[in-house]
Amino acid sequence: MTPDIRKQIRALGCNLTPDMMKGTQRIFAASYGGCAADTVISRDHQYGSDERHRLDIFHKADTRDAPVLVYVHGGGFVMGDKRSDDWPFYDNVGDFAARHGMVGVTVTYRLAPAHRWPSGPEDMASIVTWLHENIAEFGGDPARIFLMGQSAGAVHVASYLAHSCFHGTGGAGIAGALLLSCIYDIANADANAFHQAYFGEDEAAYPACSSAQGLIESSVPWMASLAEFDVPDFQKQAGHFVSRHVEQTGRYPPIHYLSGHNHLSPALEIGSPGATLEPVILDFIASQTV
Amino acid sequence: MTPDIRKQIRALGCNLTPDMMKGTQRIFAASYGGCAADTVISRDHQYGSDERHRLDIFHKADTRDAPVLVYVHGGGFVMGDKRSDDWPFYDNVGDFAARHGMVGVTVTYRLAPAHRWPSGPEDMASIVTWLHENIAEFGGDPARIFLMGQSAGAVHVASYLAHSCFHGTGGAGIAGALLLSCIYDIANADANAFHQAYFGEDEAAYPACSSAQGLIESSVPWMASLAEFDVPDFQKQAGHFVSRHVEQTGRYPPIHYLSGHNHLSPALEIGSPGATLEPVILDFIASQTV
Repeated sequence: MTPDIRKQIRALGCNLTPDMMKGTQRIFAASYGGCAADTVISRDHQYGSDERHRLDIFHKADTRDAPVLVYVHGGGFVMGDKRSDDWPFYDNVGDFAARHGMVGVTVTYRLAPAHRWPSGPEDMASIVTWLHENIAEFGGDPARIFLMGQSAGAVHVASYLAHSCFHGTGGAGIAGALLLSCIYDIANADANAFHQAYFGEDEAAYPACSSAQGLIESSVPWMASLAEFDVPDFQKQAGHFVSRHVEQTGRYPPIHYLSGHNHLSPALEIGSPGATLEPVILDFIASQTV
Repeated sequence: MTPDIRKQIRALGCNLTPDMMKGTQRIFAASYGGCAADTVISRDHQYGSDERHRLDIFHKADTRDAPVLVYVHGGGFVMGDKRSDDWPFYDNVGDFAARHGMVGVTVTYRLAPAHRWPSGPEDMASIVTWLHENIAEFGGDPARIFLMGQSAGAVHVASYLAHSCFHGTGGAGIAGALLLSCIYDIANADANAFHQAYFGEDEAAYPACSSAQGLIESSVPWMASLAEFDVPDFQKQAGHFVSRHVEQTGRYPPIHYLSGHNHLSPALEIGSPGATLEPVILDFIASQTV
């Protein structure tokens, strides 16, 4: 991160105001270098029956048997898309995967309040099933699918990983998960309209939706990240999860601290020079094959 | 970290056995590229009256007004040195600083049981005083001194930062601290012979030696790191400190998770290709000038 961008991000603060969100997008749209000319992009594959059950695929023509990196966008359970007409996001993530010899996949999923819990892990399951059946055709290895989600997207990925009732007979069907700014335990999160829209108004149902215990017990490898200027409740969530993880396992969990970043910037920075998250993602995926 | 080195480190385990320590040193001695030919090394400046009050300085001939990175070795309070006849450590850290336009300093300090608490923070204070008076002559900026300690060295740096009674009239006199695998709260650490040698046998005195509260309240910026295969008690210490920090401040502390590393490897890897800690250190130092 350049000193100038660091200064701009710091000035935007921690809270998800419209100015902060637009400001962060503007910074990284300006520094983004664009998709590589030889990345093949195949759009809007339908992975389920809903209009939002669509995914885009990014790969090089000669890619074979490669790891598959799936990006699940954020947006407070009620908004967001794999793609925008105004910004290069999240084509930037798909192209990043392709440039590093992987197959990139960006997905759109159903939204609250029309689709409440457990629509998130249900859609993750549909994506995994679709990829198992189809991704080899695009050069992907179905045995090395990695789900990476941000914010609400991280909650959906964590929910899928943590609740085996959403898995097929062969297990979760993924090689790893990457959780960028996750809510680990919804029952202990600050109440807000986004959570109510997706998890419902009955907080007594929240503990059953928590991912914390399932993540701690998961046999599927995962990593997470937390940003220096992350939204305060996300900072608290990560802190409490670290404590719970250490108490139960004696081990510190794989949560990466992203200096200088805010809630949105780590994913938006992907594809910009020196992006913090790029080596972290590549290292995690490489480490699963050692 | 290459897949081969990752595999070797993982196989060495988390505990500080002689095989683990020698094995880790061997790995990074083999991958180390050596000091740059144009790094000027000036050895054994005496910063106090004890035989171990010595420091080495690394810089380029034309360096002026540069940040100063001081490395404080580990060794369980009872052993260790800034330099070894058998290994390139920790000349590797001093040379890393010089190669990046900084002034590198590696230090030796007094050891337990001959020198108990608070010999560590006392020696840190003597180092800071000596650097303020002398480092400009070697191209260093006395206003930008960064103390980086590992293990017992991290405890000494944290103790100095956390206990203002060791500071001069102008404050701590440093621009930042870097704590690699620190014990934050000695009163809640596992009892062991190293702690007893340095902090004494009376555990009732331990809470007053803790750095946790002082770090949380410190106005001097700091960062820390914790390794995936760190010694179990260091993992627990970091976990409990994260929890305490979040509870008191609402903010997640700047603790970097170092995937694939053990207790010793992050510092030993400095100067080897792709060293994990190098960008983390450079980013932290750069961020203090934004």
